[in-house]
Amino acid sequence: MRRRLLAEFVGSTLLVTVVVGSGIMAQSLSPGDAGLQLLQNSTATVLGLAVLILILGPVSGAHFNPVVSLAAWWQGRQISSRELGGYLTAQVLGGVVGSVLANLMFGRPAITWSTHDRAAPYLWLGEVVATAGLVLVIFSLVRSGRTAVAPAAVAAYIGAAYWFTSSTSFANPAVTIGRAFTDSFAGIAPASVPGFVVAQLIGGVVGLLLVRGLFARSTPERVRAS
Amino acid sequence: MRRRLLAEFVGSTLLVTVVVGSGIMAQSLSPGDAGLQLLQNSTATVLGLAVLILILGPVSGAHFNPVVSLAAWWQGRQISSRELGGYLTAQVLGGVVGSVLANLMFGRPAITWSTHDRAAPYLWLGEVVATAGLVLVIFSLVRSGRTAVAPAAVAAYIGAAYWFTSSTSFANPAVTIGRAFTDSFAGIAPASVPGFVVAQLIGGVVGLLLVRGLFARSTPERVRAS
Amino acid sequence: MRRRLLAEFVGSTLLVTVVVGSGIMAQSLSPGDAGLQLLQNSTATVLGLAVLILILGPVSGAHFNPVVSLAAWWQGRQISSRELGGYLTAQVLGGVVGSVLANLMFGRPAITWSTHDRAAPYLWLGEVVATAGLVLVIFSLVRSGRTAVAPAAVAAYIGAAYWFTSSTSFANPAVTIGRAFTDSFAGIAPASVPGFVVAQLIGGVVGLLLVRGLFARSTPERVRAS
Amino acid sequence: MRRRLLAEFVGSTLLVTVVVGSGIMAQSLSPGDAGLQLLQNSTATVLGLAVLILILGPVSGAHFNPVVSLAAWWQGRQISSRELGGYLTAQVLGGVVGSVLANLMFGRPAITWSTHDRAAPYLWLGEVVATAGLVLVIFSLVRSGRTAVAPAAVAAYIGAAYWFTSSTSFANPAVTIGRAFTDSFAGIAPASVPGFVVAQLIGGVVGLLLVRGLFARSTPERVRAS
Repeated sequence: MRRRLLAEFVGSTLLVTVVVGSGIMAQSLSPGDAGLQLLQNSTATVLGLAVLILILGPVSGAHFNPVVSLAAWWQGRQISSRELGGYLTAQVLGGVVGSVLANLMFGRPAITWSTHDRAAPYLWLGEVVATAGLVLVIFSLVRSGRTAVAPAAVAAYIGAAYWFTSSTSFANPAVTIGRAFTDSFAGIAPASVPGFVVAQLIGGVVGLLLVRGLFARSTPERVRAS
Repeated sequence: MRRRLLAEFVGSTLLVTVVVGSGIMAQSLSPGDAGLQLLQNSTATVLGLAVLILILGPVSGAHFNPVVSLAAWWQGRQISSRELGGYLTAQVLGGVVGSVLANLMFGRPAITWSTHDRAAPYLWLGEVVATAGLVLVIFSLVRSGRTAVAPAAVAAYIGAAYWFTSSTSFANPAVTIGRAFTDSFAGIAPASVPGFVVAQLIGGVVGLLLVRGLFARSTPERVRAS
Repeated sequence: MRRRLLAEFVGSTLLVTVVVGSGIMAQSLSPGDAGLQLLQNSTATVLGLAVLILILGPVSGAHFNPVVSLAAWWQGRQISSRELGGYLTAQVLGGVVGSVLANLMFGRPAITWSTHDRAAPYLWLGEVVATAGLVLVIFSLVRSGRTAVAPAAVAAYIGAAYWFTSSTSFANPAVTIGRAFTDSFAGIAPASVPGFVVAQLIGGVVGLLLVRGLFARSTPERVRAS
Repeated sequence: MRRRLLAEFVGSTLLVTVVVGSGIMAQSLSPGDAGLQLLQNSTATVLGLAVLILILGPVSGAHFNPVVSLAAWWQGRQISSRELGGYLTAQVLGGVVGSVLANLMFGRPAITWSTHDRAAPYLWLGEVVATAGLVLVIFSLVRSGRTAVAPAAVAAYIGAAYWFTSSTSFANPAVTIGRAFTDSFAGIAPASVPGFVVAQLIGGVVGLLLVRGLFARSTPERVRAS
């Protein structure tokens, strides 16, 4: 259990460090070119996320995401209620530490609250779609017994969702909270966090309904490399 | 059968959402830089298409494309005539819904007819080449029993074809129809749709002839993850 | 034999269509931005080359390159002298047809001789390095019995070599000849072709020497998906 | 032993040729656009590094990096002290030759000392993070018996770390030394080298501690394709 929580913490930390750090680098190297910045940011995230899921999947399942942990718990009780609490705590804590680490690595104050407002119905719709798709991807692979390809598949999905959703696909409450702690490219104003998290939870439910419609109930398989 | 049609519908919907949504995002973030826009658009499409084929391949074969379904039906009757009708309907319906979803996600009216004319002999030649190549890729893998790599292969092919064909490789009648419903980067004027669809059907035949010339007739294998 | 030569011809044709076509598209969409053009051109080539090797490897070995065929013939006589002649002919013919097809697809005259001079000692050194590396990659995989990963490996190598060699890594006499038939981004002036081809042949020898130094002589394995 | 050292030398040489050469190309094609330059440089490195680890892994383990060799030696004595000396020598020598080769290939003097100062606490923190992550990735795969995916995983990690660390992730003393020999995009002033190397060694220790916390001690497995 200790190792699993450490894996969720380390993974969530590094995931947010990748997202925020590459956002700061992009902002610094390509000022004024938002499209190039997002391409740099999304490319780095695809590569980093794939590696984190790959290396930590065997330890904790590599959720790094409260919506995924909740869905895993709700789907087949594959993680217990007690474990669920530990997972969520480790993920949120990691998200915050990841932002702080990125800030420090780029010579900025440890915490700078984001001033980037992200609150509008069309952005919330973006988060619903983004999170529904993420849950669909993960549990499609779980249901069909192919979690071995989850590192590449989940990372590729997020790379696409950066672009096809209007919200650039946060799709993760822990990452959303973490990204409030940095006033840089990837940040989100604290006041915009609740709207995103609610949309993500709704998206999670939509995703599970899609999975239920598309796949027959199979023998429960442990969510590992998802 | 219900699950298969749902998979074709969901897959075609999300494919067009990826293509159109990333096109709108690209247009919005990199105004006036058509080359960077297409790079963003094509990168998102490669990643998203690979994931959609991966997760839905085991359910329906992940055609998402009337030309592919027609070729599968014609090649080995691997889908029946009745199934074929269901597949085509689900694909076209999905293409339209995908465009609407992308429009809404970016705060636009649900339907805005494209004003992007795409009608010229050299563009039709582009679609013939694009679709012939697509059919060649898919059925080469079917003939050699390697449909497991189809998600990556088909997505990579489309990523190249965005660039090496003059038409940016629509190569799919359902996606072509869907892209008429959005007046944005990835759109196509309704009047240009028939020309593209005819070229795609011709390309499909050319592709099958190439497959026949290159591969010996093997035992029919079900077109699944294609 | 007929199928194998057809595969070499189709593969070489489409390879040059990908290289030249994406070059024309890049030039047209990102005028005046040579760095973005090469990124678009190299990205399309990586994706297209991987797919071509993947689908045609089982038929002919997917050489598409006289240096590779010569090296295969010289290494283990895995293709006979008669086959070698057929392979080289199909490859060069394909290279030319590929250029013509790209020109036509973009509404240009079928043949426009390139005016792009590429003749200088440092460029020839680039071609020596590029081709040596290509031969090293392919025959390392052959020697270690891992040609199954050749599609991704060879494409990734070429994608890197576009950037780390001064010549943007033609590394292929058939492609070099084909690229003389288009006055566009990827072209090479006819007068510069011989220098490149000689450098490529030298690079092939250097590559084989490296392979010999690094790998013990293993049981000859057929060069297939290389 | 001779083959293994040759592999470490050739691999380290070509790795630095890829990094430096693509940096010169980027600088030359996209002058004044630092963000696009880094995207070109990092993309080429990801592709080239993956291929080098893939082809030379079976020969020497494809370390190409003194920190990795030291960690392998320290972890399980999987390379002897005598071998360690040979590895480090081959790597540093390769790093220097790689820079020289890149300089020559682009028509520059063989050696031009870099004038690019890279000395600041936040950059050193970047190198600690970069190297800790690299060691975490490699030895996570070793501990979980999945070194077969190391080529893609290590390359993807470096691709992300180019962007999420403030130092663009040198993460390798041999490469750092080599990059002092070129006054171009990827260079580092000789006076900045010691600070980077110290930070990398610290990062290596941090990485090993993370591995120890996350993974149970497994049966020692030979570090091969790492």
